[in-house]
Formats: sequence, structure tokens, C-alpha cells
Amino acid sequence: MTSTPGSPADIEFPQLTAPDREVRLVAEERQRDLTKPAGSLGRLEELGCWVAACQGEVPPHPFRRPRVVVFAGDHGVARYGVSAYPPEVTAQMVTNLVAGGAAVNVLAAAAGAGVRVVDMAVDGDTSDEVSAYKIRRSSGSIDREDALTQEETVRAVEAGRALADREVDEGADLLVAGDMGIGNTTPATVLIATLTNTEPVAAVGRGTGVDDAGWMRKLTAIRDAMRRARPHTRDPIALLRTAGGADFAAMAGFLSQAAVRRTPVILDGVVVTAAAMVAEELTPGAARWWVAGHRSAEPAHTIALRHLRLEPILDLNMRLGEGSGAVTALPVLQGAVEILANMATFSEAGVSTRDEAPTKSLG
Amino acid sequence: MTSTPGSPADIEFPQLTAPDREVRLVAEERQRDLTKPAGSLGRLEELGCWVAACQGEVPPHPFRRPRVVVFAGDHGVARYGVSAYPPEVTAQMVTNLVAGGAAVNVLAAAAGAGVRVVDMAVDGDTSDEVSAYKIRRSSGSIDREDALTQEETVRAVEAGRALADREVDEGADLLVAGDMGIGNTTPATVLIATLTNTEPVAAVGRGTGVDDAGWMRKLTAIRDAMRRARPHTRDPIALLRTAGGADFAAMAGFLSQAAVRRTPVILDGVVVTAAAMVAEELTPGAARWWVAGHRSAEPAHTIALRHLRLEPILDLNMRLGEGSGAVTALPVLQGAVEILANMATFSEAGVSTRDEAPTKSLG
Repeated sequence: MTSTPGSPADIEFPQLTAPDREVRLVAEERQRDLTKPAGSLGRLEELGCWVAACQGEVPPHPFRRPRVVVFAGDHGVARYGVSAYPPEVTAQMVTNLVAGGAAVNVLAAAAGAGVRVVDMAVDGDTSDEVSAYKIRRSSGSIDREDALTQEETVRAVEAGRALADREVDEGADLLVAGDMGIGNTTPATVLIATLTNTEPVAAVGRGTGVDDAGWMRKLTAIRDAMRRARPHTRDPIALLRTAGGADFAAMAGFLSQAAVRRTPVILDGVVVTAAAMVAEELTPGAARWWVAGHRSAEPAHTIALRHLRLEPILDLNMRLGEGSGAVTALPVLQGAVEILANMATFSEAGVSTRDEAPTKSLG
Repeated sequence: MTSTPGSPADIEFPQLTAPDREVRLVAEERQRDLTKPAGSLGRLEELGCWVAACQGEVPPHPFRRPRVVVFAGDHGVARYGVSAYPPEVTAQMVTNLVAGGAAVNVLAAAAGAGVRVVDMAVDGDTSDEVSAYKIRRSSGSIDREDALTQEETVRAVEAGRALADREVDEGADLLVAGDMGIGNTTPATVLIATLTNTEPVAAVGRGTGVDDAGWMRKLTAIRDAMRRARPHTRDPIALLRTAGGADFAAMAGFLSQAAVRRTPVILDGVVVTAAAMVAEELTPGAARWWVAGHRSAEPAHTIALRHLRLEPILDLNMRLGEGSGAVTALPVLQGAVEILANMATFSEAGVSTRDEAPTKSLG
């Protein structure tokens, strides 16, 4: 093998195709034929055209099987007080997610989406079904050690790709990745700050609500981890290995493979978007298959969205993770699709267009 | 009768009650018990508590019968080229709305809301059902004449109140007012600029897409109308009479009566929010029953939202009217309610709270 250890050459990534440009132009033409002034639905118009381009048809069809996959994992760094919550909450929340009591379950059900929970690296035991893709118990503490071995990293990325394949093979026509893991905004911030060459202090946020002393511990951990990660900026697998974790690696694989399978994605908050940045490095162009569901309260999220050139649909100061922001945005995206699919055209409705009857000038 | 002509004393308005403050506190307490970090759902948390306070119960129930009433009306000023569209489009669009082909029909259906269309002052004939509340054919051209007579104004306000009563009596638990009328952003801008003492040039926008010459005509018409309206700033009925129209008067009555009936409302764009400002003058405190669905592209809308101290849920550059922005926001509000209604609490799910297991300090 000629590749250096940790290079993406350890995994075969296919060349990506883009959403269909011709179909997009036809969708834009249809927008102009619908019984509304051109552009008057603002962002909804562009979102509808994007979905049409992803689906390759005009009108696009409303999503039939949107699916959320929540990637759970613990992070060694959480033992050192970077979060407001103790690490055992991750396993407890997996149980809650499986039982349907978490925020993403409720919001996904309201939006017509199904939820799957996968344990990638929870520091405890979960059911056989949930742990089918599990890589290890907790990823390493990235301020002082690698999150994963090279082999574990590759296996986690492959697990994420397999999960995307499985969802798409089962009929998913829209994918959302969610995250659950105490301490996971720390690796997310490290990945984003490293890939965008941002000072840690400009990127670190409160996560789920850490206090001032915890924020300082988090900043220190992020600084230390960035020092370890920086040599690997151009090697996404090595970056996941040193500064990510099994959940991040799996999400990166999942988001990359969604693009390979030409399936649109709504991104969630800072953790998922950090994984998305790595996925864009693994398979450049993948971001064209993604829309940003929301802008979270975490400063690193805004940095990541700018880097990916994605404009969030919602800006509601959410900062929970789990995919909760993405599924909150799902009905807006669905509405954009319904517009293109079901509105009447000017000719169907017998409505005059602006060109048909010139208005008189005043006075 | 001792009241001056055009004073609100021509109509009896009951004293308003506010959403239940005690219930709101109980809802806020329940938010803290749900399996998520406090505040992590951002704006969704506050929206859920507001609905609980409106409904007077914790948890609130997801909306069962959200209803949109679209108020259609023509405006004399449209004959003078203030819009990109000819006036006959209003009647054509009423037909389209009744047939279910307009944007609000599609978005409301996707959000589980029903739509009623009422012709308040369309300059043409509509069906008996749609015209049951009709006041006249077209409101006057407000740059040179009153929009309505005093008697017509009072009758239109009463029609709007009757429509709110009818919807609530038929089980509506959330109301949306929508607008349809070529040229209607001109009276909307006049009402907002007059009530906020804003220079016309800072408030006038492109409406549905008027060109530069049309924008100048619109600005001139707004200046002239404001000169006629200004003496009536403190008399909301006189303001509707001189600078509004039958659709605006009916929307103002509708939004005021929704508050009287303790029914929450999602406001739409600049036209509805202009009517809402007048409704707040008619029945001070009504705004506590309203949430702003979105921020439209019209500059006057931002001025009106600031005046009413309402923060929009969405900011998607929409500027169509019809209630389209409000129904796009409806699933977000519904999601906020579902969170309070259906998420598990920490004790139900056996999840540790942040206080139960203090984290160790780093190093």
C-alpha cells in the first residue's frame, strides 16, 4: 500500500455527481408559471428548486420517507468537565431516544420523519439493535490522545456509509443526521476551528450550558486538541482519528454517502456540521446535496456554515443536537416542495400575469 | 350620541384579558423537567409556553383546527400604477383561492390548516358564499379620497369580528388572517408609517415587485394618503376609514376579536401586521395573543413588528401575503407545542440532571 497511514486512500470514495442542473432550470421556470409574483415566496422558491434538482424531476414529489439517524457516542474529554452534564447521560439518553421521549422523536413525529438510533461509542451497554455498528466504548480524550485508532476510524466511516445505504435502500428520500453525546461540542469545535484555521476562543461556545469555569476547561481542551489535530488538516481520516471520534467518523461517512446516493440532507447543528465539513473533504461536492436546517447558538456553527456556503433555514437559538433543528426545518422544506408540486399555474387558474395588462401611470 | 364621528365609541369593544400568567410559569417549569438542557430548544421553548398560557393548560394541546381567513379587497389606488399587477387579478385570485390553487392553500394543507376566503371589497362579482360579508366594490383611492364611509368602516370591522367568532365557535384553536388585493401594500404602508410617525421613503417597498417608476408613483400616493390620514392617528376607526379599506377594517376586527376570544394568532406579512397595529389601537393588549410568523421583505413590516414588539419566527424573504408566511411558520409553532405535550421528563426517562452528578475539574 502506497498511501500514508490515515490517508483517505484507505477507503474508496466514488466520484460525486451534482444535483441535476437542467432539472433545476425547468423548476425555476415552473416557479415563474405559478400563481404568485416571481420571487414572492423568497427562500421557499429556491429550496423547492433544489429539491427538484436533487430528485431529478419537476415537479418534485413531497418527501415520502424522511429519516433521521442519531449517532450516539461518548468522548473521553467529557470526563474533564467540559460539559454541564455527566457522561452517563449519553447512555440514558439513548434509552430515552429508543423509547421515543427525546426532543427529536417528538419533532420528527410531528414532521412525519422516522428515527433510528445507533450507538457508535457509548461508554456503556446498549441493546443489540442499537449497538450493531458500535466501534468501541467511548472515543479517546482528544486533548491528550487520539480519539480512535486508524482501523476504528475507517470502520466507523464505513458504518456511516452502510447506514446511509441501508436507509436509502429502505426508501428514504431525505436524510438527517443527529448527534447525542455528552461533551461532543468539544471535538466539533476542534474540527471546525482546525479546518477553518480559526482561533479557538472565537469558536468555543457553551454547548448545552457549561458554566464559566467549565468554559475555560473546554477552551483549554480545545487548544490542546487543536495542537494535536493541526498536522492533519489535509487528511480527513486522520482528522477524524485524532480529533473526532466514532460518532463523528460515522456521521461523516453517512453524509458523504447520502451525496453518493443522490439523496438530499438537512444538516443539524454544530456537531453534525463539523462532521459535514469532514465529509466535504472526503468527497468534495457533497455539500451540494445538503441544506442547513438551522443556525445554532454555538459560534463554531456559524463559522462552519460560512465555510460550506450554506444559509440556514431557521435561526431560533436552538442548541440541543439530536437532529432537532433539522427536523424543525423539515416542514418548511416540505412546504417548499408542496408549492412546486401542487400550486396552480397562471394558465390553469386563468389569472393575468403582470405582462398582460399594463397599468396606467399616475395622474 | 356624544362620540365624535369616526371614534371607536361607534363600536363596543370589551376589555381584554391576557394569556394566563400562572399557567405560563407552570409551563416554564415543565420545560425545565423535560429531557433536554434548560433553554436548549431556544425560541421553541418560549413559543410552547406562550401557547400554554393562551390555552390555559399545561401541557398545551397540539392545534386541532387551525384556520386561515383570507380577506380579499381591491384598492382604488391600484388604478394608478402602484403595483406590478392589474387590479382584475384580485378577483381572479379569489377564484384561484376558492379552487385551492394558491400558495396559501398548498401551504395550509401541508400544515393541517383550513382556509376560508372572504370578499370584503373586490372590484367584481364573486360567489354568494365568498361575498357574504362584502362591504362594497373596491375601497376608495386613499391618496385622494376616503377608503370607506364611516358606516362602511364600522360594518367591515364588525364583519371581521363576526368571522373570528364564527371560526372560534366552529372549533378553531388557532387563527391566521391572510390578505389578497392588488395594491394593498400601499394602504398597509400608510397605516404603519402614520402610526409610527415614519418617513414614507423609509417604509415603502416593492410590494409584489413594482418597478422603479411604479415605486415612485407608490411613494407619491403614500405621501398624499399620509397627509390625509395624519389627523386621525389617535382614532383607529377614522384611520381605517381614511387610509385603510374594507379588507383592513375586517382584518383589524378579526385580530381584535381573536384576542377577545382568547385564541392565539399567527400574524403574516406587512398587510396583516398593518391591520394588527390598528387592532392593537382598538383593543390594547390584543398583541399578547399574537405571534409573528415571519419577517417579510417589505421594510414597513420590520417597522410594524418592532412597534408591536414581536419577534418573527421565520425570516425567509417572503412577500406574497395570503397568510403564506404565517402558515409556513405554523409547523414550527406546532412543534413547540408537541415538545411540551409529548417529551419525556427527566424522572420519567431516568436521565440524570446536571445537578445530580457534578463533573470533575480538568487535570
